[in-house]
Amino acid sequence: MHNIAVIGAGRIGKIHAANATAHPGVTLKYVVDPITPAAEELANSTGAEVASLDLALGDPEIGGVIVASSTDTHLDFSMRAIAAGKAVFCEKPLDLGLEKAKSAEGVLGDARFFLAFNRRFDPNFQRLNQRIQSGEMGALETLHIISHDPAPPPIEYVKVSGGMFKDMTIHDFDMARWLLGEDPTEVYAAATSIIDPAIGEAGDVDTAKIILRTASGKICVISNSRRSGYGYDQRIEAFCAKGLLRVGNKLSSTVEAWGENGSQSEPLQNFFLDRYAEAYRAEMMHFVELLEGTARPQIGYRDGIWALAIAEAAAESHATSSVVPVSY
Amino acid sequence: MHNIAVIGAGRIGKIHAANATAHPGVTLKYVVDPITPAAEELANSTGAEVASLDLALGDPEIGGVIVASSTDTHLDFSMRAIAAGKAVFCEKPLDLGLEKAKSAEGVLGDARFFLAFNRRFDPNFQRLNQRIQSGEMGALETLHIISHDPAPPPIEYVKVSGGMFKDMTIHDFDMARWLLGEDPTEVYAAATSIIDPAIGEAGDVDTAKIILRTASGKICVISNSRRSGYGYDQRIEAFCAKGLLRVGNKLSSTVEAWGENGSQSEPLQNFFLDRYAEAYRAEMMHFVELLEGTARPQIGYRDGIWALAIAEAAAESHATSSVVPVSY
Amino acid sequence: MHNIAVIGAGRIGKIHAANATAHPGVTLKYVVDPITPAAEELANSTGAEVASLDLALGDPEIGGVIVASSTDTHLDFSMRAIAAGKAVFCEKPLDLGLEKAKSAEGVLGDARFFLAFNRRFDPNFQRLNQRIQSGEMGALETLHIISHDPAPPPIEYVKVSGGMFKDMTIHDFDMARWLLGEDPTEVYAAATSIIDPAIGEAGDVDTAKIILRTASGKICVISNSRRSGYGYDQRIEAFCAKGLLRVGNKLSSTVEAWGENGSQSEPLQNFFLDRYAEAYRAEMMHFVELLEGTARPQIGYRDGIWALAIAEAAAESHATSSVVPVSY
Amino acid sequence: MHNIAVIGAGRIGKIHAANATAHPGVTLKYVVDPITPAAEELANSTGAEVASLDLALGDPEIGGVIVASSTDTHLDFSMRAIAAGKAVFCEKPLDLGLEKAKSAEGVLGDARFFLAFNRRFDPNFQRLNQRIQSGEMGALETLHIISHDPAPPPIEYVKVSGGMFKDMTIHDFDMARWLLGEDPTEVYAAATSIIDPAIGEAGDVDTAKIILRTASGKICVISNSRRSGYGYDQRIEAFCAKGLLRVGNKLSSTVEAWGENGSQSEPLQNFFLDRYAEAYRAEMMHFVELLEGTARPQIGYRDGIWALAIAEAAAESHATSSVVPVSY
Repeated sequence: MHNIAVIGAGRIGKIHAANATAHPGVTLKYVVDPITPAAEELANSTGAEVASLDLALGDPEIGGVIVASSTDTHLDFSMRAIAAGKAVFCEKPLDLGLEKAKSAEGVLGDARFFLAFNRRFDPNFQRLNQRIQSGEMGALETLHIISHDPAPPPIEYVKVSGGMFKDMTIHDFDMARWLLGEDPTEVYAAATSIIDPAIGEAGDVDTAKIILRTASGKICVISNSRRSGYGYDQRIEAFCAKGLLRVGNKLSSTVEAWGENGSQSEPLQNFFLDRYAEAYRAEMMHFVELLEGTARPQIGYRDGIWALAIAEAAAESHATSSVVPVSY
Repeated sequence: MHNIAVIGAGRIGKIHAANATAHPGVTLKYVVDPITPAAEELANSTGAEVASLDLALGDPEIGGVIVASSTDTHLDFSMRAIAAGKAVFCEKPLDLGLEKAKSAEGVLGDARFFLAFNRRFDPNFQRLNQRIQSGEMGALETLHIISHDPAPPPIEYVKVSGGMFKDMTIHDFDMARWLLGEDPTEVYAAATSIIDPAIGEAGDVDTAKIILRTASGKICVISNSRRSGYGYDQRIEAFCAKGLLRVGNKLSSTVEAWGENGSQSEPLQNFFLDRYAEAYRAEMMHFVELLEGTARPQIGYRDGIWALAIAEAAAESHATSSVVPVSY
Repeated sequence: MHNIAVIGAGRIGKIHAANATAHPGVTLKYVVDPITPAAEELANSTGAEVASLDLALGDPEIGGVIVASSTDTHLDFSMRAIAAGKAVFCEKPLDLGLEKAKSAEGVLGDARFFLAFNRRFDPNFQRLNQRIQSGEMGALETLHIISHDPAPPPIEYVKVSGGMFKDMTIHDFDMARWLLGEDPTEVYAAATSIIDPAIGEAGDVDTAKIILRTASGKICVISNSRRSGYGYDQRIEAFCAKGLLRVGNKLSSTVEAWGENGSQSEPLQNFFLDRYAEAYRAEMMHFVELLEGTARPQIGYRDGIWALAIAEAAAESHATSSVVPVSY
Repeated sequence: MHNIAVIGAGRIGKIHAANATAHPGVTLKYVVDPITPAAEELANSTGAEVASLDLALGDPEIGGVIVASSTDTHLDFSMRAIAAGKAVFCEKPLDLGLEKAKSAEGVLGDARFFLAFNRRFDPNFQRLNQRIQSGEMGALETLHIISHDPAPPPIEYVKVSGGMFKDMTIHDFDMARWLLGEDPTEVYAAATSIIDPAIGEAGDVDTAKIILRTASGKICVISNSRRSGYGYDQRIEAFCAKGLLRVGNKLSSTVEAWGENGSQSEPLQNFFLDRYAEAYRAEMMHFVELLEGTARPQIGYRDGIWALAIAEAAAESHATSSVVPVSY
């Protein structure tokens, strides 16, 4: 049984805390959050105790720490936990600043540091990746990723989000690297705030079509939108030498209604809490492997740097309306 | 170039006349219909002449006759055309009376007489049959046929239709024999007039679930409804030893709309004129093979008798609430 | 926190034990099974203790009992548990003998006795039922249930199963009653052992098409097969006055492969452990409602009697090749 | 009845000739082709005569001319036919040279000149356009066009094709303008010859992802590939303010096979002759409207110039790896 602590009692912290509690091999011992009522509520519902970060990191019984606090604290808390000998499960992104994030390489680069890009743990995308890597369809040549949210976040969130490329597209940059099996060398981003001018006034975009190219000649298209109008659109198409492998959306049930206007499905699963519920559980299972020492992190510090580097290049491409090289 | 005549200038006569006109190997020379304005209109639109039946059958240039007149004349006109040495393309059903129809065996049994059950000529069902017969899925064991009309016919039609089993299910009885590759030996029909009590008052049913069994042990379920509410439902599932072969419905276009309530297809093709347009064209191509002597009728007199015999047994099963043997 | 005991440490007992253990409101205290190693293994993996039935029923801390033992013990253990004041979660079927089962009415008829027909708890079928009952599609008129297993059970199992109607179709009889909102008044079953003659030699069938009719005129078709060749086929179509509501199958992932032979889905979920995993969890949630006294059993003793009564009538229909009335 | 001539007896000339022959309002009088055997074969199969271009254009009975000859003759033959007072049905593209094509504006700009971009006449894309324009889904914001051929053309064809952008993508540029209801102002093309290095050695590409932007801020992504491995992939997704409208592929039949590996569709329609058969027929119907004076060309000279201008800008973008403005 592994004792762990969670830092951050917000929406994503609650998910990870619940999955830790339900896992037979894990005990959630501490909840750390400066907002005491939130910490207490989460502690009560999971049977954990509220603790300070120092107390949690100083407890030798604690084997691992989940960093689910605000983005600007990810690096600091992760480095402190690593320094205290704990395994770390860190929410994405690594940080909003590439240069700052790079400075952590000495501590986090080869540590037991798991950067939790949840989509890689979705069973459907895992099966897609497995079938791409198997070569059954020949070599992957081009990739299309569609990632549209149901509706935009509040404008206050937009203002502190780091921009759509670092906040939202960063998932797709990571997926692209994972599925392509290769890092991009250049990026072009055509972006706009066609959905909500207020997002544009806040200096951000809400819609983007992005093209990545790799050294070997593969091309990836990413489509992003902050508002689909029809739920959470999460599709991928992998065009290979012999054919196409694709992942479709998930519906809220398999009921269909046929009427005079045709066949109507049930709504798409609306957002990430539903769509990636299994992925979050699988992340916890992977973290337990880290705690047990039976696996190295499937996603680590350098994956986080790469995703940030692409996001910064995409932002520059958008700002300059030009193709921008990416490197690390 | 084969000269032919069409008897009957109604809805189905017009379809066959148009397909004959469009076929490069056929000239539609005569239209025969006692209702002169209808005959003249069809003759004008196809470049044919209006003629009496005697004139058409007496013209040695005429090689074939399409019998698309009212059901009670099918047998008589077909026999006269055969006697005159013409090939016959006869609409279904053979007749509404099994005994009367049986009396024509001497003339029609081995003649160049093509009974036009259109569904056998649909490319999708032909492909289904081809794949069943290929044995790729192992032996066919059970069969489900769904055949639901969009909306009931006028009650005046119902009264003279011969009853749903002979008017509508007869198509499905023929499809069952064709796909099973075997004749049924018994039938059970559970039928009702749940859609429209007026149909019940007219002595007919509007909804039926029918089970056919064959000597070798195959079982077929037919579902019939005079009203679907969602267009023309024409589906078949063939359960074989190694898996399932199925044919789905056809939509009016491939456009899909995704909104907050899910994904909405376009409406189903609404009725037989759309759904079986290709089948009607293929029937004409088959009739040309008969005219050219390069093929024997794919569906003949005895198929018509079988379909009628099953329909009568189904009606008896419904009337007596018992399983009824079928034979020919 | 409710303490419960599970009787039976076989396949289905393990599922319910795991779901009880994972439920935050339940503690699995005892495992009861005469086969000691099985009991011990399940007790070890869930943190429960091995106990005799008497000890479990005599413990005042135990609020509920899961009866997951062999079918012939369901009635006896359930009655003893009810007599001891426990709530009961009983696996289907109630028993293999209708007369014997009827004799338990005095004890079980109005007790806190939950008969666990799992399919009613599947979220997709629940949504189907909800939409049927809402009347959005008009009145339900006819119902098609397809329920095909991937592969036949061992012949030794077949011999003690009570026959396909009581062992397998019993689920569909219960679904039919639930969705129709009405009890059947007559049944016709066309059945055969076309899949495996050994099943026929054992006095059972492996394939059936069954028609149920209700007093108000609704008709239901059930298709059963012990072997699909393509996984677990669990589909329902509800034909209503204004259109069709249907539930499709579930695939093992959403990946599709498009190649020169067309588009290939992933396999269907193979069998009930996968297909109904959510339903089993929902059953446990319902049982907790019983333990807390916040709900009456959604499925009770009389539902079990009805399903058995239809199964016996279906067997008689098959044996006599006639339509058989059903009553209770 | 309108008499017309076809120039060019190759693959596409044969299609238009057959559709003209089958149209009840058109007589194909002449076939013009310098390759006499081809001209004679087409004339024989359609009942037309072989003629020189001068004879065809000089015949006052001829109302219209189909220009289906080699691309480098499109402009010249079209201008001569217009000068002779004929309506023109011209195959795409207008020409391979933008400057040369622009020089024809005085003659063709406002003439009865129909440039036959076939995809605009496909019933599915017409329905898509109708639903976009209806505004039911709110304003169109971004557009995805997938257009992948089943297999690359012979290298000899590639060498004279004018390059993939003018030969293949030109269809998609026209579709983009039609569906966006707006002209693009800039283009970025990421292209490669990943499929066949020989295509790259010939100075062309076989794979491209292209982003178009319009003045109002709409963004369009086009995906092109000379080889899909799974047939003719022709899909469009229109992301609108309230949801998504999309057109899928067409299969060669509706048969599905369910086996242990999942559900297998029939192959996609393989190439344009099948996929766009209805569109070619609809083009002929539109040409008859021109001949009758009841419509102006739905696609004219300036549409051809726009498509060429975008294609040249895309080629420049590929060559310079930069975003290139488009204008006319």
